[in-house]
Amino acid sequence: MRILVLGGDGYLGWATSMYFSARGHDVHAVDNYLRRRAHQEAGTDSLTPIGESLPARAEAWRAVTGYRIGVTEGDLTDWDLVERLFRDVEPEAIVHYGEMPSAPYSFISREHAVFTQYNNVINTLNVLWAMRDYAPDSHLVKLGTMGEYGTPNIDIEEGYINIRHNGREDRLPMPKLPGSWYHASKVHDSTNMHLACRIWGLRATDLNQGVVYGIETDETRFDPRLQTRFDYDEVFGTALNRFCLQAVIGHPLTVYGRGGQTRGYLNIVDTLQCVELAALNPPAPGEYRVFNQFTEQFAVNQLADLVQRAGVEYGLDVVVAHVENPRVEMEEHYYNAKHSALMELGLKPHFLSETLVESMFARIEEYRDRVITKAIMPRTKWRPEPRVKEPVGD
Amino acid sequence: MRILVLGGDGYLGWATSMYFSARGHDVHAVDNYLRRRAHQEAGTDSLTPIGESLPARAEAWRAVTGYRIGVTEGDLTDWDLVERLFRDVEPEAIVHYGEMPSAPYSFISREHAVFTQYNNVINTLNVLWAMRDYAPDSHLVKLGTMGEYGTPNIDIEEGYINIRHNGREDRLPMPKLPGSWYHASKVHDSTNMHLACRIWGLRATDLNQGVVYGIETDETRFDPRLQTRFDYDEVFGTALNRFCLQAVIGHPLTVYGRGGQTRGYLNIVDTLQCVELAALNPPAPGEYRVFNQFTEQFAVNQLADLVQRAGVEYGLDVVVAHVENPRVEMEEHYYNAKHSALMELGLKPHFLSETLVESMFARIEEYRDRVITKAIMPRTKWRPEPRVKEPVGD
Repeated sequence: MRILVLGGDGYLGWATSMYFSARGHDVHAVDNYLRRRAHQEAGTDSLTPIGESLPARAEAWRAVTGYRIGVTEGDLTDWDLVERLFRDVEPEAIVHYGEMPSAPYSFISREHAVFTQYNNVINTLNVLWAMRDYAPDSHLVKLGTMGEYGTPNIDIEEGYINIRHNGREDRLPMPKLPGSWYHASKVHDSTNMHLACRIWGLRATDLNQGVVYGIETDETRFDPRLQTRFDYDEVFGTALNRFCLQAVIGHPLTVYGRGGQTRGYLNIVDTLQCVELAALNPPAPGEYRVFNQFTEQFAVNQLADLVQRAGVEYGLDVVVAHVENPRVEMEEHYYNAKHSALMELGLKPHFLSETLVESMFARIEEYRDRVITKAIMPRTKWRPEPRVKEPVGD
Repeated sequence: MRILVLGGDGYLGWATSMYFSARGHDVHAVDNYLRRRAHQEAGTDSLTPIGESLPARAEAWRAVTGYRIGVTEGDLTDWDLVERLFRDVEPEAIVHYGEMPSAPYSFISREHAVFTQYNNVINTLNVLWAMRDYAPDSHLVKLGTMGEYGTPNIDIEEGYINIRHNGREDRLPMPKLPGSWYHASKVHDSTNMHLACRIWGLRATDLNQGVVYGIETDETRFDPRLQTRFDYDEVFGTALNRFCLQAVIGHPLTVYGRGGQTRGYLNIVDTLQCVELAALNPPAPGEYRVFNQFTEQFAVNQLADLVQRAGVEYGLDVVVAHVENPRVEMEEHYYNAKHSALMELGLKPHFLSETLVESMFARIEEYRDRVITKAIMPRTKWRPEPRVKEPVGD
C-alpha cells in the first residue's frame, strides 16, 4: 500500500513509518519539525537522541533494513506542498499524526492557543481537499484523542451514540467536552472530517487515542539510530512515561491534584497495531468511522502506585508527590469508555505490567545524563494567575 | 450598557448598533468590510444602498438622531486591534456578528473554506482571550446558527440534551451535524466558547439563529441613509429575502431541489429583540448558554407558496421553479427545533404574513433598478463537478 505518514518525525509518526515500511508498504513521511522547534524554544529535548533530521533517519533505516522511506520536509498548512505530495505519492492511505499534540502548549499564551487551532484545523482541511481532488478513494487514518470526549457522566461510545428522545431515535455524534484548546482543535477536525465524508464520499477513520506509553518498538530495537523520541517535559510528556523517568532519576512522581483522573492508556506497540488494523480494513466510501484506541483505563494514582511498586522491585526509591493541578479538570469522576471496535478487528493488546515498567526503567537509565530536570515540573496553567492588586497610595 | 458590536457594518450588525444606540446604550461598532469586499470581488452588491463606510453611516445616525455610535474599522483576527478595543471600550456586552456568514462562500474553493474557518475561529478565540484578560465580567452574545445542528431525526434542543444511557444520565452538548464549512466553523466556535466558560468562568450566550428575513427595522425607517444591507445573491442571499426579490423582478422563485428543507425563520426586528433580551439577562459567570433564535419553522416550499400568494394579492405574476440543488442536504426530513428560552425571557414574535411579504415587495420595488440579475442563480456547488474524461487518442 502507498502510505503517507503525516508527522512522520514524531514519537508515533516515526515508529509508524518504520512499522509499515518493514511490512513491505511504500511509506512517505512528512514533517515540518514543529515539535523539535517547540523543544528548542523551551530549552528541552527528547530523552532519546533521534538524529539530526528526518532524511537522516530514513537514511539510517535504509542502511539497516534495505527499505526506503520517502521524506518530505514541509508544512501541511502550505497547500502547494500538500497538493504536490498527493500528486506525487498518490496515497492509498494517509496516516495523519501531523498536528500540534499538546494541551499545555495550547495554554502557554494566546499565540499558542491560536497557533494550535490554526495549525491543526487548516492542515487537516488541506488534507481533506487534497483527498477530494487527487485521491478520492484513499483512506484517511487520523489520530484524534480520547480527550475530545472529556469526562461525561455516561459511558463514552465510539464516536456515535444512539439517542432516544421524545419518542424518536437517531445515531448521532457522541457529544464532546474537550478540556483544552488542543483537545478542542481535535474536536474541530472531527467535525470537519465527518462533513467531508458526508458531502464528498471520502472515507476516514478517526482514532480517538488514549495516552500512549513505552519507549521501544520492534523496529526501534534494530539499531540505536532508529530510536523514536521520548518526551517527559511538562509540555509534551505524558503521565506514565514521565513517572518512569522520574522514578529513574529520583524525582518525586508528580501526580496533579488528587490523582483520580482516569483515562485510557495503551502501549506504543499497540498504537502501531491499531493504525495497521485501521489501514488494512478501510471503511466504505462516505463513511466517517471512529475507534476509541486504548487498551486499559487507569487513574493517575494507579499508575503512580504501579511505578512505585516496580521501582521497589528494581531497587529504586520512589516517592509520590501530589502537586497543585495546573489544569482545570475533575479529579474524581465516572469514566467508562468503550473500546471494542479495534479488538473486533483483531487487536492483541500488550497490557501494562511491572515488567514493562521495569524495562522502561532500563532504557531510560541509558540516557539518564540527557535528562533536563527543570523541564519536568508543570509551569503552564489553564487559568491565569490572579492579578496582584496595585497597592493603594505609596 | 457599554456594548461592542462586532460586524457592525452587516445586515444585522448595523441594525443592532442603531437599535441599542436608540435605547441609550453606548455602542461601539467594529467591521473590516469583509462582506463588502466579497461582493466587490463577485461583482454583486446589496440591493439597498448602504453608504460608503461605517463611519459615514455612524455620522448619518448622529445627524438624524443625535446619538453617537463609535466606530473601528479593523480585523478581529488582528490581536493588537482586539486588545486595544477591549482596553478602550471596556465592554459590558459584546454582540458578535463578526464572521464570514455564508455556506456557499465556504464552498467556492479550498481557499474560501480555509479562510472561512480561519477567520471565524481565530477572531472568536481572540475575543475570548480579550475577555479573559480585559473584561472577565463581560457577557459575550455570539451569533451561532441553527445550521450547526443539521437535520437530526430527533427534536433539536437548545444547546444541551439530557441523555440517559446504560443506566446513567448527563446533560451534554446537543450533537451537531453542520452541512457546510461555514456551519462547521460555528460549531468550532461553540466548542471554544463552551471551553472558555468552563475553564475561565466567562459568561456567553450562543444565539443559534434561524434564517432572518426582512428589510426594515424601526431605526432604518428614520432616514434613507440609515438602511441596512439586503442581499439576494447566491452567496449571501437567503431563502425568503431572495424569493421576495425574485417575485418583484419577475424571476422564477428558485426552490433548490424538492423544497422540503425545513428550517427556523425570524423577522429581523425579532433578531434585535432577541439580542437585547440576551444582553439584558446575562448568564452566571462560567455559564455557556444556548438559545435557539427563531420564531417559526417553514419548509422552502411553504415560503414559495406564501410569496406566490402574496404576489397574486400584490399584482405580480410569480412562478416557482425547482432548480437543481447545489447543496448536499436532505430535501425531506423530520425537523422539530425547540425555541422556548427567548419566549420565556419575553420575546414578542412578529410572525410571517402575506402583509409583511407585500411590504417587502414595496421596499424592493424602490431599488428594482439596482438588481444584478446574474447574481441570483446558484453556481457554487457543494460537490465538485464530475471530471470530464480526457478523450482517448486524438
